[in-house]
Amino acid sequence: MEKKKLQTISLNKIGVDDSFWGKYISLVTKEIIPYQWSALNDEVKDAEKSHCITNFKVAAGLEEGTFEGFVFQDTDLAKWLEAVAYSLSYEKNEELEKLADEAIQLIGKAQEENGYLDTYFTILEPGKQFCNLKEGHELYTAGHMIEAAVAYYKVTGKDEFLNIMKRTADLICEVFHREKYENAVPGHEEIELALVKLYEVTGEEKYLSMAKDFVERRGTKPNYLEEESGKDWYVDVWHDANPYHPPYGQAHLPVRQQKTAEGHAVRAVYLYCAMADLAFFSQDKSLFDACETLYKNIVEKRMYITGGIGSSGILERFTTDYDLPNASNYAESCASIGLALFCRRMAQITGDAKYIETMETALMNTVLAGIAMDGKSFFYVNPLEVWPNACMEKTSMEHVKPVRQKWFGCACCPPNIARTLASLGEYICFTGEDSLWINLLAGAEISTELKGKKVNIKMDSSMPWEGKIRLQISAKETAEGSLYIRVPEYARNPIFTLDGKKAVPGIEKGYAHFKEDWKNQVITLEFSMEAHFAYANPNVRADVGKAAVVKGPLVYCLEEADNGENLSGIFVDVKEGLKENFREDLLGGAMEITARGKRVVKKDWEKESLYRLAPVELEETRMKFVPYCHWGNRKTGEMAVWVKYW
Amino acid sequence: MEKKKLQTISLNKIGVDDSFWGKYISLVTKEIIPYQWSALNDEVKDAEKSHCITNFKVAAGLEEGTFEGFVFQDTDLAKWLEAVAYSLSYEKNEELEKLADEAIQLIGKAQEENGYLDTYFTILEPGKQFCNLKEGHELYTAGHMIEAAVAYYKVTGKDEFLNIMKRTADLICEVFHREKYENAVPGHEEIELALVKLYEVTGEEKYLSMAKDFVERRGTKPNYLEEESGKDWYVDVWHDANPYHPPYGQAHLPVRQQKTAEGHAVRAVYLYCAMADLAFFSQDKSLFDACETLYKNIVEKRMYITGGIGSSGILERFTTDYDLPNASNYAESCASIGLALFCRRMAQITGDAKYIETMETALMNTVLAGIAMDGKSFFYVNPLEVWPNACMEKTSMEHVKPVRQKWFGCACCPPNIARTLASLGEYICFTGEDSLWINLLAGAEISTELKGKKVNIKMDSSMPWEGKIRLQISAKETAEGSLYIRVPEYARNPIFTLDGKKAVPGIEKGYAHFKEDWKNQVITLEFSMEAHFAYANPNVRADVGKAAVVKGPLVYCLEEADNGENLSGIFVDVKEGLKENFREDLLGGAMEITARGKRVVKKDWEKESLYRLAPVELEETRMKFVPYCHWGNRKTGEMAVWVKYW
Repeated sequence: MEKKKLQTISLNKIGVDDSFWGKYISLVTKEIIPYQWSALNDEVKDAEKSHCITNFKVAAGLEEGTFEGFVFQDTDLAKWLEAVAYSLSYEKNEELEKLADEAIQLIGKAQEENGYLDTYFTILEPGKQFCNLKEGHELYTAGHMIEAAVAYYKVTGKDEFLNIMKRTADLICEVFHREKYENAVPGHEEIELALVKLYEVTGEEKYLSMAKDFVERRGTKPNYLEEESGKDWYVDVWHDANPYHPPYGQAHLPVRQQKTAEGHAVRAVYLYCAMADLAFFSQDKSLFDACETLYKNIVEKRMYITGGIGSSGILERFTTDYDLPNASNYAESCASIGLALFCRRMAQITGDAKYIETMETALMNTVLAGIAMDGKSFFYVNPLEVWPNACMEKTSMEHVKPVRQKWFGCACCPPNIARTLASLGEYICFTGEDSLWINLLAGAEISTELKGKKVNIKMDSSMPWEGKIRLQISAKETAEGSLYIRVPEYARNPIFTLDGKKAVPGIEKGYAHFKEDWKNQVITLEFSMEAHFAYANPNVRADVGKAAVVKGPLVYCLEEADNGENLSGIFVDVKEGLKENFREDLLGGAMEITARGKRVVKKDWEKESLYRLAPVELEETRMKFVPYCHWGNRKTGEMAVWVKYW
Repeated sequence: MEKKKLQTISLNKIGVDDSFWGKYISLVTKEIIPYQWSALNDEVKDAEKSHCITNFKVAAGLEEGTFEGFVFQDTDLAKWLEAVAYSLSYEKNEELEKLADEAIQLIGKAQEENGYLDTYFTILEPGKQFCNLKEGHELYTAGHMIEAAVAYYKVTGKDEFLNIMKRTADLICEVFHREKYENAVPGHEEIELALVKLYEVTGEEKYLSMAKDFVERRGTKPNYLEEESGKDWYVDVWHDANPYHPPYGQAHLPVRQQKTAEGHAVRAVYLYCAMADLAFFSQDKSLFDACETLYKNIVEKRMYITGGIGSSGILERFTTDYDLPNASNYAESCASIGLALFCRRMAQITGDAKYIETMETALMNTVLAGIAMDGKSFFYVNPLEVWPNACMEKTSMEHVKPVRQKWFGCACCPPNIARTLASLGEYICFTGEDSLWINLLAGAEISTELKGKKVNIKMDSSMPWEGKIRLQISAKETAEGSLYIRVPEYARNPIFTLDGKKAVPGIEKGYAHFKEDWKNQVITLEFSMEAHFAYANPNVRADVGKAAVVKGPLVYCLEEADNGENLSGIFVDVKEGLKENFREDLLGGAMEITARGKRVVKKDWEKESLYRLAPVELEETRMKFVPYCHWGNRKTGEMAVWVKYW
């Protein structure tokens, strides 16, 4: 851990101009934000109702009615506002800003006098604030609202929303230091990382201190969440008869003693984000070590090759080391977003690109798979293998959807994906003291300062299809400082040039380090990045005898659209090479990968028999792989990342 | 369908004397029945409490207290009494009979004046009888009570229990013809087949007629169960907020239109039992055809090689054709018992041994796996692949237990297995008009009559380890008639002798037909039955590239106890033969099967990495298979039926 942390760049200092990512960024402004606004207002046909805006109107006394939706329904609006803030930083849009300002005014009207803000409790359980932290989600909701308020303030400079949320945060800081709450923690983490953000923008120590208390209390005895339902002010929210299960909410041990990632995956990574933040601000080595241990447990034992986390459909949670079933998992889009946020923080406080590697995997595979290429439908659950027939309602597979859903009654993922894509610039690069750090090799224009001198960097990239990157650095006045460019682990034979001459920069924690007097320079980076077969640790029972196809940061998959039905019956010949072919007409322009192999012949099997003594015949076949992030954008069918090989 | 059906033999006319089955039969009397009596009385240490007997005492007014346990807790006592009845037919036991008589008196005292019998409603919801057929289980409970009463009457000749249950049945016949119940059906089938049994023993047509009405009403509109909760006398039992899902209870279509086995597997096969019974008594071709269609759907598309049914852990149910996941399935012991009961009925009304084949598979694999070899612990769920680490509470795998459980709060399986084993004679042979039908080639002594002349048959068998069967037929007076001996589909080169000379009997629907003047004859049957690899239809996604080992009726499996951990990392060479070796010291004496193959080498994989670009190395290995029915009787560990091959 460093003494100073790298900062995410202000989003108005970076423009994304990338053929791969660009589509998604423009989807956010052009499609997703307007679409989600309609959804929040229950104006999307054939989709589950959100009721979110109506809840605020009812809480504000502007409409008659009651609360509908999940207890955390308010967060839909929070995430939408956060996405709006980010999108405004790229592109002014007065109409959108006006909508947002009105929504913020509505939020203000729905806030109670003491600063309390949560429409569920205001409408349905007035006077019962903070009486069910296990299920109530008030602190989770407040966290998302604070994140949105901070983002909106940073982009627009307007402080109305920030002030609303400071009042809520002030209330939280006051309430959660009362005696009866002295060991209280939220059931769903999120407020912790949000309070750190609020501290960063306001400088008010009490917010940092409250975040720290929430993190330090977790998993200590007495376990507040376990004992809460016995308290006389407790109020039942979800009529959940089950006793509290501490690992589910990472409350089984004090955080420094946690060695494995446990429980609900989204909660876990949101907690780890706050732990990383607090480790930095307190320069707390033991807390940092806990983060590192948890990070290693995830990436070495509990993460899908796609950056998905959460192996169990029931309770959307981590299970045990190497338990990575492909068809029945959860791997929630939000969990991979949280993993990316955690990795970004770890990279910020260490300057180590290994975390960026994981962040990139999560973003470019699971998070992008979570959204349709038209921005109009979404996956919660991101399986690595799908057989649509088996994804039946009222069975163990009912959480797996073979088709993206328009909108969810419980709509955490769609707006979370939107805010993530809208803030992509924060992932692309960091700024340090007289330094700029390039994380994602994506096309972008970056304005920064090195020792007070303005520098512009125009980055062109052929990623993820080819390892060709060109950076045009220009400064009016000569600027001194360092440029760090990440050299991904998947880059083979990376070659740099500086102004046309081969350069051999030092590699520091995965970043190539250039220190120049910057004026007008061109740096290029080229590396080979052919598609390869990848294999899983043999302890992963689900993947023994199977191979996946990867190309750079992208994981590939087979789809029924290209390969017919029964992908389980396909065996790839890994001794034969993979062929790559860029196709403009494929999924908006993508590198298709083909291989040779065999597949089961069904015609020699009598229709009537389920088992027999003769083995199944195989025939020669060719197969076609497409990027996993783009699966499910054609006709409904089977999909498989891991393919049998011989 | 025949005009006359084959009858199950009276259990006092058959004694099982078999080295394989004998252990289980004696477990029932010596261990299970006393153990289960303790369980019913809450006297088993460290096991979940049953509270069953206490419920009856409270309902009878003999004790103060309330109802505890599941709404169908009474059935534990019913199944125990049924098992006791069967065991008494083999072996007199005055003490046990006295216990049973006292339990029956207690049941009588718990019965309400109008004949109603169900301690849950009597204690907790007096006056709310039959006000929640969806969840109430009163008709299911009555069904098990009737089955027990019929069995007890047939064995002991005592009619107290039968009369109690006739009063309950009379009430049911009266109530369920009232106008408000005109389309009512039970949520969980069982009463239908029980009413047929009551008809068979009493000759009272109204019981048959009520059974028929329940079967005919199912799946018709208006759907009673779907609409029930809107009725003004409805009472909430399980606080289940979900709307009724008709396929779950086979109520999606009228029974004749059902082409696929749907919903909760136990409910389904209990319904099919009644359908087969009624098809026979009504000589109803369309109902029989429906049974045959459903049977075919199960065995051709929805049954595990072990005779297990129910692919989904959630709701313990059938899913879709060829969806047979090995590790996450349900395959409840009770469902395979129900399947055996259905198959037995189909064989009784057709004389076709194909149903016996399925019945034998279910009994000898899944049902036997359901009980520990010491009779003291039980599986509900019967996976074909287990990795104990992954069977975690509060995850999608929590229904799968790697270790048999002592007793269940919801204890349907243990007493169901007990009653099934105790009545094994009913599966071994049938009697027809002047004929005896041998179904299971198990050691037994059978007394029967052919045209009024007594005949004794002593059957010696080396099954399931060797295909050697010897039948000694003896009659004091020459008896005319037919002896049908099943020739299993797995029997290769079956050779019969009659009194030492080769015989070539005609084969009729899977049975060898001998028609002789029986006096003193010896028939032998020998066939080869080496272990073989079996393969699944390639539409079964879960089993492509895998082989199972079968020997005659037995399915084999790998266990960690013999093969070390990570059974998923083993590949069997199917081109090499299987070696068989009978071992006295293995699992009480069993044929061990060994094979050659390869397995993953873990030492070449760095501990820290989850994915890499180099494939996993393999090394030569030998592996050992043991009978699936005996798995989990040594130390806890992994198990796998389907093994990768190359």
